[in-house]
Amino acid sequence: MSGISARDAEPVAIIAGNGRLPLYVAEAAREAGTPAFIVQLRGEGGNDWSDFEHMDADLGGFRPVVAALQKRGIRRVVLSGGVRSRPELTSLRPTARVIWSLPAILKKLRSGGDDKVLRMVIDLFERHGFEIIAAQNIAGDLLATAGTLGAVALDREARADIDAAARAARVIGSMDIGQGAVSLGGRVVALEGAEGTDQMLERVRAMREAGRISQKRRGVLVKLCKPQQDLRADLPSIGPETVRAAAAAGLGGIAVEAGRALVLDRAEAIAEADRAGLFLLGLEPDTAMKPVL
Amino acid sequence: MSGISARDAEPVAIIAGNGRLPLYVAEAAREAGTPAFIVQLRGEGGNDWSDFEHMDADLGGFRPVVAALQKRGIRRVVLSGGVRSRPELTSLRPTARVIWSLPAILKKLRSGGDDKVLRMVIDLFERHGFEIIAAQNIAGDLLATAGTLGAVALDREARADIDAAARAARVIGSMDIGQGAVSLGGRVVALEGAEGTDQMLERVRAMREAGRISQKRRGVLVKLCKPQQDLRADLPSIGPETVRAAAAAGLGGIAVEAGRALVLDRAEAIAEADRAGLFLLGLEPDTAMKPVL
Repeated sequence: MSGISARDAEPVAIIAGNGRLPLYVAEAAREAGTPAFIVQLRGEGGNDWSDFEHMDADLGGFRPVVAALQKRGIRRVVLSGGVRSRPELTSLRPTARVIWSLPAILKKLRSGGDDKVLRMVIDLFERHGFEIIAAQNIAGDLLATAGTLGAVALDREARADIDAAARAARVIGSMDIGQGAVSLGGRVVALEGAEGTDQMLERVRAMREAGRISQKRRGVLVKLCKPQQDLRADLPSIGPETVRAAAAAGLGGIAVEAGRALVLDRAEAIAEADRAGLFLLGLEPDTAMKPVL
Repeated sequence: MSGISARDAEPVAIIAGNGRLPLYVAEAAREAGTPAFIVQLRGEGGNDWSDFEHMDADLGGFRPVVAALQKRGIRRVVLSGGVRSRPELTSLRPTARVIWSLPAILKKLRSGGDDKVLRMVIDLFERHGFEIIAAQNIAGDLLATAGTLGAVALDREARADIDAAARAARVIGSMDIGQGAVSLGGRVVALEGAEGTDQMLERVRAMREAGRISQKRRGVLVKLCKPQQDLRADLPSIGPETVRAAAAAGLGGIAVEAGRALVLDRAEAIAEADRAGLFLLGLEPDTAMKPVL
């Protein structure tokens, strides 16, 4: 996997989904002296790109993106940020339909989870001669480190919850369904599907309020890579919003894998966690990767 | 497994959770000439028991239930209806605490999913000399039959969705997390946790509205037994409410296992499904039971 260094002046294209990750990647590139060209996916916005050279693109409109990158002599691409909507095949532009006419790709787009679709996009760029580089290779500071990140330590009950939720997260990840699970009292109470982490946490909050889960056991959120996923795209990420949603759900902490998850706005996330009495934990990959079935 | 027959006048106790199943079981018992004594769990109500001999009980209050059953010479018990809330250990009455003081039971109550907790309750009754009989052995008409139940047939896309959702449902069932999953376009988009089926369907509706899942592919709900579960308690069930929630979520149908799921208010459920253009399918257990990993 290629990264960039401080003297790396070769430009990079940032395909920007939703969330703040694309902005951090763009800022990190700028700090490293790397020109960044932003391709903002329509409908996945949220960031102000007025300070960067940028274009908008449809998820189904691959051809104009290729043209824009080639015109600028860009051959390195970063995929960053989530993609909430899935293009309907019938909404693809004719050019994209031609490019995407391989049966295997059509099948993946029709039936795939996020991981399958991302692999397809990576494959598409690579077949056009681009190199995919990981967001964390530009913005390495975002990677979760091992151990507790904030001031709050975890107890034995949290360990049991981490084990249970990690096992569940790994299984649903291996099925390309989601990356996250919530466990409390050793019991898994919520699994992440297409709704995403924040909405899963809101559900836990509502179940707590309705008395459907214990009022006394705090529980944990675990987010893990899908075992088969390409680490150049869609690493699990947490940030201050995740911490606030976890606190609202009454959880005692959040665990991700060190080196295989991103912590956005780290200082603010840690401050929020400390304030709410939540631990933030970077699991040693060995621990989190133990066989689950 | 014991059932009751038309000439079976030996009384039965019905431990009643939420939903209408306990009422159907009680009515079926009455039709069979079997006196039914209702033990309504507090906080899980919804049925009017004025027409039956009944008592209220706390989930943690086992001793008075045993006394009431023994006084009436009842030695057969049916567990029926869902249990939404989980007792906190500290809220158990002293008598129950003594009975439930075995470490294994405490551990299950603390960490178990529904299946573990139900096994515990079954075990508790059996160790006190009671026989557990299945709701479907009293109200056999409720069992799902094989094939399509209504007028709507399913297409090939639905088959692929059933396969994907069944695989996911079986996996989360084996982990004692939930019984249901929703798939559309071959992609699993929602997994059932402690929130239950209706809330999972409401989530799918909301994701559909927000454009996070396809507007064009309908998708299916599959509910399956947990592979390890005791079939005398907590069979997957569907009813008119499930059909309405599935229709609101834009789904094309619902599949359960023939002989291993309950269809409540069958005529109304089928009428709702026909009206909304949904199929209702009883899977052959062989199909649904194929290895999933």
